[in-house]
Amino acid sequence: MNADEIMIASAITLWKSTVSRADKIFAELSESDGSQRVAPGRNRIVYLLGHLTAVHDAMIPLLRLGDRIHPELDDVFVKNPDRAAADLPTFGDLRNLWENVNGHLLVLLQQGLSAAWWAERHASASEEEFLINPTRNRLSILLSRTNHLSYHLGQIVLAPRASGGS
Amino acid sequence: MNADEIMIASAITLWKSTVSRADKIFAELSESDGSQRVAPGRNRIVYLLGHLTAVHDAMIPLLRLGDRIHPELDDVFVKNPDRAAADLPTFGDLRNLWENVNGHLLVLLQQGLSAAWWAERHASASEEEFLINPTRNRLSILLSRTNHLSYHLGQIVLAPRASGGS
Repeated sequence: MNADEIMIASAITLWKSTVSRADKIFAELSESDGSQRVAPGRNRIVYLLGHLTAVHDAMIPLLRLGDRIHPELDDVFVKNPDRAAADLPTFGDLRNLWENVNGHLLVLLQQGLSAAWWAERHASASEEEFLINPTRNRLSILLSRTNHLSYHLGQIVLAPRASGGS
Repeated sequence: MNADEIMIASAITLWKSTVSRADKIFAELSESDGSQRVAPGRNRIVYLLGHLTAVHDAMIPLLRLGDRIHPELDDVFVKNPDRAAADLPTFGDLRNLWENVNGHLLVLLQQGLSAAWWAERHASASEEEFLINPTRNRLSILLSRTNHLSYHLGQIVLAPRASGGS
Protein backbone atom coordinates (compact mmCIF):
# COMPACT_ATOMS: atom_id res chain seq x y z
CA MET A 1 0.00 0.00 0.00
CA ASN A 2 1.21 3.52 -0.72
CA ALA A 3 0.84 6.43 1.73
CA ASP A 4 -2.55 7.44 0.30
CA GLU A 5 -3.99 3.99 0.66
CA ILE A 6 -2.59 3.65 4.18
CA MET A 7 -4.17 6.94 5.26
CA ILE A 8 -7.56 5.98 3.81
CA ALA A 9 -7.34 2.52 5.40
CA SER A 10 -6.58 4.18 8.75
CA ALA A 11 -9.72 6.32 8.58
CA ILE A 12 -11.92 3.39 7.55
CA THR A 13 -10.40 1.11 10.20
CA LEU A 14 -11.22 3.62 12.94
CA TRP A 15 -14.76 4.00 11.60
CA LYS A 16 -15.21 0.22 11.65
CA SER A 17 -13.79 -0.23 15.14
CA THR A 18 -15.94 2.59 16.53
CA VAL A 19 -19.09 1.14 14.95
CA SER A 20 -18.12 -2.32 16.33
CA ARG A 21 -17.69 -0.83 19.78
CA ALA A 22 -21.17 0.69 19.48
CA ASP A 23 -22.61 -2.62 18.27
CA LYS A 24 -21.27 -4.36 21.39
CA ILE A 25 -22.62 -1.67 23.71
CA PHE A 26 -26.08 -1.74 22.09
CA ALA A 27 -26.15 -5.56 22.08
CA GLU A 28 -25.80 -5.63 25.86
CA LEU A 29 -28.74 -3.33 26.48
CA SER A 30 -32.32 -4.53 26.99
CA GLU A 31 -35.40 -2.75 25.70
CA SER A 32 -35.85 -1.12 29.11
CA ASP A 33 -32.18 -0.11 29.31
CA GLY A 34 -32.83 1.66 26.01
CA SER A 35 -35.41 3.86 27.72
CA GLN A 36 -32.87 5.11 30.24
CA ARG A 37 -31.59 8.67 29.94
CA VAL A 38 -27.83 9.24 29.66
CA ALA A 39 -28.20 11.81 32.45
CA PRO A 40 -31.21 13.39 34.19
CA GLY A 41 -33.22 15.41 31.66
CA ARG A 42 -30.96 14.37 28.75
CA ASN A 43 -31.48 12.04 25.77
CA ARG A 44 -32.73 8.51 26.14
CA ILE A 45 -30.44 5.80 24.72
CA VAL A 46 -33.18 4.77 22.26
CA TYR A 47 -33.26 8.34 20.95
CA LEU A 48 -29.47 8.38 20.51
CA LEU A 49 -29.60 5.05 18.67
CA GLY A 50 -32.16 6.51 16.25
CA HIS A 51 -30.15 9.73 15.97
CA LEU A 52 -26.92 7.89 15.16
CA THR A 53 -28.71 5.68 12.62
CA ALA A 54 -30.21 8.74 10.89
CA VAL A 55 -26.86 10.56 10.83
CA HIS A 56 -25.07 7.53 9.38
CA ASP A 57 -27.82 7.02 6.79
CA ALA A 58 -27.42 10.67 5.76
CA MET A 59 -23.72 10.03 5.05
CA ILE A 60 -24.69 8.12 1.88
CA PRO A 61 -25.87 11.17 -0.13
CA LEU A 62 -23.41 13.46 1.70
CA LEU A 63 -20.57 11.32 0.32
CA ARG A 64 -22.41 11.35 -3.02
CA LEU A 65 -22.72 7.58 -2.92
CA GLY A 66 -26.44 7.30 -3.63
CA ASP A 67 -29.78 7.62 -1.89
CA ARG A 68 -30.59 7.19 1.78
CA ILE A 69 -32.27 4.06 3.05
CA HIS A 70 -34.21 5.62 5.94
CA PRO A 71 -34.85 9.34 5.37
CA GLU A 72 -37.99 9.02 7.50
CA LEU A 73 -35.80 8.92 10.64
CA ASP A 74 -34.80 12.58 10.37
CA ASP A 75 -38.08 14.04 11.51
CA VAL A 76 -37.95 12.41 14.95
CA PHE A 77 -34.22 11.90 15.43
CA VAL A 78 -32.49 14.87 13.79
CA LYS A 79 -34.95 17.73 13.35
CA ASN A 80 -36.42 17.29 16.82
CA PRO A 81 -34.88 16.76 20.24
CA ASP A 82 -35.79 13.81 22.44
CA ARG A 83 -39.25 14.15 23.94
CA ALA A 84 -40.57 11.54 26.31
CA ALA A 85 -43.93 11.84 24.57
CA ALA A 86 -42.66 11.01 21.08
CA ASP A 87 -43.80 7.71 19.66
CA LEU A 88 -40.42 6.10 18.95
CA PRO A 89 -39.72 2.75 17.26
CA THR A 90 -38.66 0.07 19.74
CA PHE A 91 -35.00 -0.23 20.71
CA GLY A 92 -34.94 -3.66 19.02
CA ASP A 93 -36.36 -2.30 15.74
CA LEU A 94 -33.92 0.60 15.74
CA ARG A 95 -31.04 -1.76 16.33
CA ASN A 96 -32.03 -3.60 13.15
CA LEU A 97 -32.09 -0.33 11.20
CA TRP A 98 -28.72 0.60 12.74
CA GLU A 99 -27.12 -2.63 11.56
CA ASN A 100 -28.74 -2.34 8.17
CA VAL A 101 -27.52 1.21 7.56
CA ASN A 102 -23.98 0.56 8.80
CA GLY A 103 -23.73 -2.66 6.79
CA HIS A 104 -24.81 -0.92 3.60
CA LEU A 105 -22.52 2.04 4.25
CA LEU A 106 -19.51 -0.16 4.92
CA VAL A 107 -19.86 -1.89 1.55
CA LEU A 108 -19.87 1.54 -0.10
CA LEU A 109 -16.87 2.77 1.90
CA GLN A 110 -14.81 -0.33 1.20
CA GLN A 111 -15.04 -0.36 -2.58
CA GLY A 112 -11.43 0.82 -2.95
CA LEU A 113 -12.11 4.52 -3.45
CA SER A 114 -9.06 6.62 -4.35
CA ALA A 115 -7.44 9.50 -2.47
CA ALA A 116 -8.66 11.82 -5.23
CA TRP A 117 -12.21 10.61 -4.56
CA TRP A 118 -11.96 11.12 -0.80
CA ALA A 119 -10.45 14.59 -1.25
CA GLU A 120 -13.40 15.78 -3.36
CA ARG A 121 -16.11 18.02 -1.92
CA HIS A 122 -19.01 16.56 0.03
CA ALA A 123 -22.58 17.21 -1.06
CA SER A 124 -23.39 19.97 1.40
CA ALA A 125 -20.51 22.20 0.25
CA SER A 126 -20.95 24.10 -3.01
CA GLU A 127 -18.14 24.19 -5.60
CA GLU A 128 -17.35 27.73 -4.45
CA GLU A 129 -17.27 26.87 -0.74
CA PHE A 130 -15.02 23.92 -1.49
CA LEU A 131 -12.56 26.10 -3.41
CA ILE A 132 -12.24 28.36 -0.38
CA ASN A 133 -12.09 25.50 2.11
CA PRO A 134 -10.89 22.16 0.70
CA THR A 135 -11.41 20.43 4.05
CA ARG A 136 -15.12 20.32 3.17
CA ASN A 137 -14.44 16.97 1.54
CA ARG A 138 -15.67 13.41 1.81
CA LEU A 139 -12.89 12.26 4.14
CA SER A 140 -13.87 15.01 6.60
CA ILE A 141 -17.40 13.58 6.68
CA LEU A 142 -16.08 10.13 7.58
CA LEU A 143 -13.75 11.55 10.25
CA SER A 144 -16.33 13.85 11.80
CA ARG A 145 -19.03 11.17 11.88
CA THR A 146 -16.62 8.79 13.60
CA ASN A 147 -16.09 11.49 16.23
CA HIS A 148 -19.81 12.15 16.51
CA LEU A 149 -20.33 8.46 17.26
CA SER A 150 -17.56 8.47 19.88
CA TYR A 151 -19.08 11.56 21.52
CA HIS A 152 -22.44 9.85 22.02
CA LEU A 153 -20.88 6.49 22.98
CA GLY A 154 -19.09 8.26 25.83
CA GLN A 155 -22.54 9.35 26.99
CA ILE A 156 -24.33 6.05 26.47
CA VAL A 157 -21.89 4.16 28.70
CA LEU A 158 -22.77 6.53 31.56
CA ALA A 159 -26.51 5.74 31.54
CA PRO A 160 -27.69 3.69 34.51
CA ARG A 161 -29.11 0.26 33.70
CA ALA A 162 -32.88 -0.13 34.09
CA SER A 163 -33.73 -1.81 37.36
CA GLY A 164 -34.95 -5.32 36.71
CA GLY A 165 -33.90 -5.32 33.03
CA SER A 166 -36.21 -7.03 30.53
CA MET B 1 -3.25 21.30 -2.51
CA ASN B 2 -3.13 17.75 -3.81
CA ALA B 3 -5.28 14.91 -2.45
CA ASP B 4 -2.64 13.91 0.14
CA GLU B 5 -2.37 17.39 1.52
CA ILE B 6 -6.14 17.79 1.60
CA MET B 7 -6.56 14.55 3.55
CA ILE B 8 -3.89 15.53 6.08
CA ALA B 9 -5.37 19.02 6.42
CA SER B 10 -8.78 17.43 7.08
CA ALA B 11 -7.42 15.33 9.95
CA ILE B 12 -5.56 18.28 11.50
CA THR B 13 -8.57 20.59 11.09
CA LEU B 14 -10.80 18.15 12.97
CA TRP B 15 -8.18 17.80 15.71
CA LYS B 16 -8.00 21.58 16.07
CA SER B 17 -11.75 22.09 16.11
CA THR B 18 -12.23 19.33 18.69
CA VAL B 19 -9.52 20.80 20.95
CA SER B 20 -11.11 24.27 20.53
CA ARG B 21 -14.48 22.85 21.50
CA ALA B 22 -12.87 21.37 24.62
CA ASP B 23 -11.14 24.68 25.41
CA LYS B 24 -14.50 26.46 25.35
CA ILE B 25 -16.15 23.85 27.56
CA PHE B 26 -13.31 23.95 30.11
CA ALA B 27 -13.21 27.76 30.08
CA GLU B 28 -16.82 27.91 31.23
CA LEU B 29 -16.27 25.68 34.25
CA SER B 30 -15.33 26.93 37.70
CA GLU B 31 -12.94 25.19 40.08
CA SER B 32 -15.92 23.65 41.87
CA ASP B 33 -17.56 22.58 38.59
CA GLY B 34 -14.29 20.74 37.93
CA SER B 35 -14.88 18.62 41.04
CA GLN B 36 -18.22 17.38 39.71
CA ARG B 37 -18.49 13.80 38.51
CA VAL B 38 -19.72 13.16 34.94
CA ALA B 39 -22.19 10.66 36.45
CA PRO B 40 -22.64 9.17 39.92
CA GLY B 41 -19.54 7.13 40.83
CA ARG B 42 -17.74 8.07 37.58
CA ASN B 43 -14.77 10.32 36.83
CA ARG B 44 -14.55 13.90 38.05
CA ILE B 45 -14.11 16.53 35.32
CA VAL B 46 -10.76 17.56 36.86
CA TYR B 47 -9.58 13.96 36.50
CA LEU B 48 -10.66 13.84 32.85
CA LEU B 49 -8.86 17.14 32.16
CA GLY B 50 -5.66 15.67 33.60
CA HIS B 51 -6.24 12.40 31.73
CA LEU B 52 -6.73 14.17 28.38
CA THR B 53 -3.67 16.35 28.99
CA ALA B 54 -1.52 13.29 29.75
CA VAL B 55 -2.81 11.41 26.69
CA HIS B 56 -2.13 14.39 24.41
CA ASP B 57 1.32 14.87 25.91
CA ALA B 58 2.07 11.20 25.21
CA MET B 59 1.28 11.75 21.52
CA ILE B 60 4.60 13.62 21.11
CA PRO B 61 6.85 10.54 21.50
CA LEU B 62 4.17 8.26 19.99
CA LEU B 63 4.36 10.32 16.80
CA ARG B 64 8.15 10.24 17.17
CA LEU B 65 8.24 14.02 17.41
CA GLY B 66 10.37 14.35 20.55
CA ASP B 67 10.06 14.11 24.30
CA ARG B 68 7.01 14.64 26.47
CA ILE B 69 6.56 17.83 28.44
CA HIS B 70 4.64 16.35 31.40
CA PRO B 71 5.37 12.63 31.86
CA GLU B 72 4.64 13.05 35.59
CA LEU B 73 0.90 13.19 34.79
CA ASP B 74 0.70 9.51 33.85
CA ASP B 75 0.92 8.14 37.35
CA VAL B 76 -2.28 9.83 38.55
CA PHE B 77 -4.18 10.29 35.28
CA VAL B 78 -3.39 7.27 33.12
CA LYS B 79 -2.06 4.43 35.27
CA ASN B 80 -4.67 4.97 37.98
CA PRO B 81 -8.41 5.55 37.89
CA ASP B 82 -10.02 8.56 39.53
CA ARG B 83 -10.03 8.33 43.31
CA ALA B 84 -11.67 10.99 45.41
CA ALA B 85 -8.75 10.71 47.82
CA ALA B 86 -6.03 11.44 45.24
CA ASP B 87 -4.25 14.73 45.66
CA LEU B 88 -4.88 16.27 42.24
CA PRO B 89 -3.56 19.56 40.86
CA THR B 90 -6.22 22.29 40.79
CA PHE B 91 -8.54 22.56 37.80
CA GLY B 92 -6.96 25.93 37.00
CA ASP B 93 -3.41 24.54 37.06
CA LEU B 94 -4.40 21.59 34.88
CA ARG B 95 -6.05 23.92 32.42
CA ASN B 96 -2.72 25.70 32.04
CA LEU B 97 -0.94 22.40 31.39
CA TRP B 98 -3.69 21.43 28.92
CA GLU B 99 -3.19 24.62 26.91
CA ASN B 100 0.56 24.28 27.08
CA VAL B 101 0.59 20.70 25.79
CA ASN B 102 -1.93 21.32 23.01
CA GLY B 103 -0.13 24.48 21.91
CA HIS B 104 3.20 22.69 21.71
CA LEU B 105 1.67 19.71 19.92
CA LEU B 106 -0.11 21.88 17.36
CA VAL B 107 3.14 23.54 16.33
CA LEU B 108 4.62 20.09 15.77
CA LEU B 109 1.58 18.84 13.82
CA GLN B 110 1.45 21.88 11.57
CA GLN B 111 5.03 21.84 10.30
CA GLY B 112 3.94 20.59 6.87
CA LEU B 113 4.61 16.89 7.38
CA SER B 114 4.20 14.72 4.27
CA ALA B 115 1.79 11.86 3.58
CA ALA B 116 4.77 9.50 3.68
CA TRP B 117 5.57 10.77 7.18
CA TRP B 118 2.00 10.34 8.44
CA ALA B 119 1.77 6.84 6.96
CA GLU B 120 4.87 5.67 8.85
CA ARG B 121 4.56 3.49 11.96
CA HIS B 122 3.94 5.05 15.37
CA ALA B 123 6.33 4.43 18.23
CA SER B 124 4.34 1.73 20.01
CA ALA B 125 4.23 -0.56 16.96
CA SER B 126 7.37 -2.54 16.13
CA GLU B 127 8.63 -2.73 12.54
CA GLU B 128 7.21 -6.25 12.34
CA GLU B 129 3.80 -5.31 13.71
CA PHE B 130 3.65 -2.42 11.28
CA LEU B 131 4.41 -4.66 8.31
CA ILE B 132 1.47 -6.87 9.26
CA ASN B 133 -0.83 -3.95 10.04
CA PRO B 134 0.04 -0.66 8.30
CA THR B 135 -2.82 1.16 10.04
CA ARG B 136 -0.54 1.30 13.10
CA ASN B 137 0.73 4.59 11.77
CA ARG B 138 1.02 8.18 12.93
CA LEU B 139 -2.20 9.34 11.26
CA SER B 140 -4.10 6.66 13.19
CA ILE B 141 -2.77 8.14 16.43
CA LEU B 142 -4.07 11.59 15.50
CA LEU B 143 -7.46 10.20 14.44
CA SER B 144 -7.90 7.97 17.47
CA ARG B 145 -6.87 10.69 19.92
CA THR B 146 -9.37 13.08 18.32
CA ASN B 147 -12.03 10.42 18.93
CA HIS B 148 -10.84 9.84 22.48
CA LEU B 149 -11.27 13.55 23.18
CA SER B 150 -14.77 13.55 21.65
CA TYR B 151 -15.72 10.52 23.77
CA HIS B 152 -14.83 12.30 27.00
CA LEU B 153 -16.28 15.65 25.87
CA GLY B 154 -19.62 13.91 25.39
CA GLN B 155 -19.36 12.91 29.04
CA ILE B 156 -18.13 16.23 30.40
CA VAL B 157 -21.11 18.13 28.99
CA LEU B 158 -23.42 15.83 30.98
CA ALA B 159 -21.93 16.68 34.39
CA PRO B 160 -24.16 18.81 36.60
CA ARG B 161 -22.79 22.24 37.49
CA ALA B 162 -21.67 22.70 41.10
CA SER B 163 -24.31 24.48 43.13
CA GLY B 164 -23.16 28.00 43.91
CA GLY B 165 -20.17 27.92 41.50
CA SER B 166 -16.95 29.52 42.72
